Amino acid sequence: MMVDLDALRPNIERLSHGIDELAAFHDSSFAGWTREVFSEPYRASRDWVRARMAAAGLNPTVDPAGNIVGRLAGRHGGGPALVTGSHTDTVRQGGRYDGIVGVLSGIEAAIRFQESGITLAHDLIVVDFLGEEANEFGISCMGSRSITGTLAAEHLDRTDNTGTRLGDAMAGFGLDPDAALRQAWSSSDVHAYLELHVEQGPQLERAGTEIGVVTAIAGIDRVLLRFAGSSGHAGTTPMSDRHDALVSAAEAVLAVERVGCGAPVHGVATPGSIESSPGSMGVITNEARLWAELRSVDRSWLHGARQQLVDQVVAATAARGVELDVEWLTDQDPVPAATAVQDVIAETAGGTGYTWQAVPSGAGHDAAHLARLGPMGMIFVPSVAGKSHCPEEFTATADIARGAHMLASTLFTLDQRDGLRSA
Amino acid sequence: MMVDLDALRPNIERLSHGIDELAAFHDSSFAGWTREVFSEPYRASRDWVRARMAAAGLNPTVDPAGNIVGRLAGRHGGGPALVTGSHTDTVRQGGRYDGIVGVLSGIEAAIRFQESGITLAHDLIVVDFLGEEANEFGISCMGSRSITGTLAAEHLDRTDNTGTRLGDAMAGFGLDPDAALRQAWSSSDVHAYLELHVEQGPQLERAGTEIGVVTAIAGIDRVLLRFAGSSGHAGTTPMSDRHDALVSAAEAVLAVERVGCGAPVHGVATPGSIESSPGSMGVITNEARLWAELRSVDRSWLHGARQQLVDQVVAATAARGVELDVEWLTDQDPVPAATAVQDVIAETAGGTGYTWQAVPSGAGHDAAHLARLGPMGMIFVPSVAGKSHCPEEFTATADIARGAHMLASTLFTLDQRDGLRSA
Repeated sequence: MMVDLDALRPNIERLSHGIDELAAFHDSSFAGWTREVFSEPYRASRDWVRARMAAAGLNPTVDPAGNIVGRLAGRHGGGPALVTGSHTDTVRQGGRYDGIVGVLSGIEAAIRFQESGITLAHDLIVVDFLGEEANEFGISCMGSRSITGTLAAEHLDRTDNTGTRLGDAMAGFGLDPDAALRQAWSSSDVHAYLELHVEQGPQLERAGTEIGVVTAIAGIDRVLLRFAGSSGHAGTTPMSDRHDALVSAAEAVLAVERVGCGAPVHGVATPGSIESSPGSMGVITNEARLWAELRSVDRSWLHGARQQLVDQVVAATAARGVELDVEWLTDQDPVPAATAVQDVIAETAGGTGYTWQAVPSGAGHDAAHLARLGPMGMIFVPSVAGKSHCPEEFTATADIARGAHMLASTLFTLDQRDGLRSA
Repeated sequence: MMVDLDALRPNIERLSHGIDELAAFHDSSFAGWTREVFSEPYRASRDWVRARMAAAGLNPTVDPAGNIVGRLAGRHGGGPALVTGSHTDTVRQGGRYDGIVGVLSGIEAAIRFQESGITLAHDLIVVDFLGEEANEFGISCMGSRSITGTLAAEHLDRTDNTGTRLGDAMAGFGLDPDAALRQAWSSSDVHAYLELHVEQGPQLERAGTEIGVVTAIAGIDRVLLRFAGSSGHAGTTPMSDRHDALVSAAEAVLAVERVGCGAPVHGVATPGSIESSPGSMGVITNEARLWAELRSVDRSWLHGARQQLVDQVVAATAARGVELDVEWLTDQDPVPAATAVQDVIAETAGGTGYTWQAVPSGAGHDAAHLARLGPMGMIFVPSVAGKSHCPEEFTATADIARGAHMLASTLFTLDQRDGLRSA
């Protein structure tokens, strides 16, 4: 089937208006746009998403894990589906684009196919995945984990800082946590997975490129370093007698940064949070805790950086007589995008005439989980100044229009390709 | 008047028993011995102290600032008094000796003078000063500040972390904050001030010396450093684009330590507490706060160290594009002990046969305030392993006996000396 890709351009007024309407659902007690998982604004916004999917002819259902799943039937009458989606929850004090652009552009693509009289061969599934962002339960991508069968009973027992179990929070939100554990799509359900997302970094804007073809999604290693030194009087304990846990933690902060700055291509290391006690003026710190993370699309770099960080911190704490405990909290490998899907995105960019470049994704995405089920690809559009997870997060309307056009056009092309999985 | 100094040895059973009885008043919801200012255990312990002073013939009164003031009349019938004392409040999770040894040994000295048939020329005043330790109001030595006329209306408006004003806390404790502001002893009221205290550092124990003759009480400069960087996504922001406030704070922690380690004779620098926000995994820190302090008995070192610290932190933050705000919270000059009183303590040690050495006091004391009123001196006894402000704080009974003996003997000698002020 030959189609003029121009026919797949979004109705940008409709799409922009949808982004604005969704942004209205937020917790105004925080700066920016805050719609955290299980919050009231999130609950209300999801009714809006379902209504929008229904109006788009996607017959949405909500699965036991809270994913809103819309489906547009294809000519094959079942079989592997083309899947797209993203999420509509935000971090606290977040923005209006992260995740949202992907969900609403997926719905827009379904509308445009119908408005253009196009019936795809495969069913098109559009998903608003539940709770993609990091949260107090320490488990991101809840919905996409459930769909891919990797949500575990252990996850449901995690608690937020009020002591509420994740499983109870899900049940309180009207979900079915036990069924969420049991459900899992099969790889035979998925022809390909494609996600449109704002870049959240500065590379596209700096290069003046319109479209990013994601090569891989970074792996993340998170660690909690606990330092146990000796308390003592800050006025009377000689400097040479001290085992100051805060000084050791500070050295570790700088070690984290050093490791990150030594990274090739894509690799970053971030000290996320620090705590010290007793935290009194006049008393030497005997306990400090530092949370840090390493990310890279390069598995071998990540492995080496992790070892390098531990080696440096072990040596520095030993030299001070401070005890160290190292606890790795997550260990998420980098996920490459399928080469075949990357190729289709790049070809499609050629067809639409948009400039493009290959980029890594430093952020995690539902796509990293969906990659378990089938060939996965991601399309990025520029983020102004690379800002994300903050109220200043912004992507220009023209870039959103190009992204939505690329999403629909690439879905259309993927629909016609066989052998994506083996490529 | 010639007196065999042996007659002034304490009744160590009585003194030790008193220390044990006082230790029983503590907040058992914390480790160690916690008797913080304005707490119920402190209130209860003060009734015990008054009763002990009354039994010792000291006719105690409580002044508007809550100082418990006992007086033993001398032969002169008024005029400048010999003053001794210390405090009975503790830090949270503190010990049984800091302050307490000085108050109870002062009372014991008064008892021993009477038991030995000695009437001093000067009145002997024994004071249990209110609230010497650092507290949430950020104002230590409340009682001795009031007595020396340096408690200020500004201090009464300070609040603890529940938002309670110091003035209201004092009133709620049965004190008279307005009168506490107005009262002030005159320098003509004080012949000399002498305080016995545990060293709280390791020097006497390491040297195997029994008695410390304090040369000076360290000055303290406390500072709050505020770092304002830029938030951003920890996965997508290139290392070279970051303005990480936590990394700047970590560099400042190490700068504090460097300055302290460069100190001559006596000088220490301590990072007291650190906070960072937003404190989320996956988000670069945009705000960090570091509280630190510098102490030395050497005023010129302290001044230079303060400048050196600021210079280093200013340069490091500028290099990172992180904004810095420097707020000095206290600026307390070192206070030398009167040479004449140091000489009398040393001579008295010669008379008792105890080994002694000159030592600086890294900790602050009520004595630093009392020095405004008259010639001041301090006697130190060893602290095991130099530990203080912690449950492990310990001074051996034999050392307490020597200290109390030195306190009574030195008070006896000071009583006979004129011209201490001009020496």
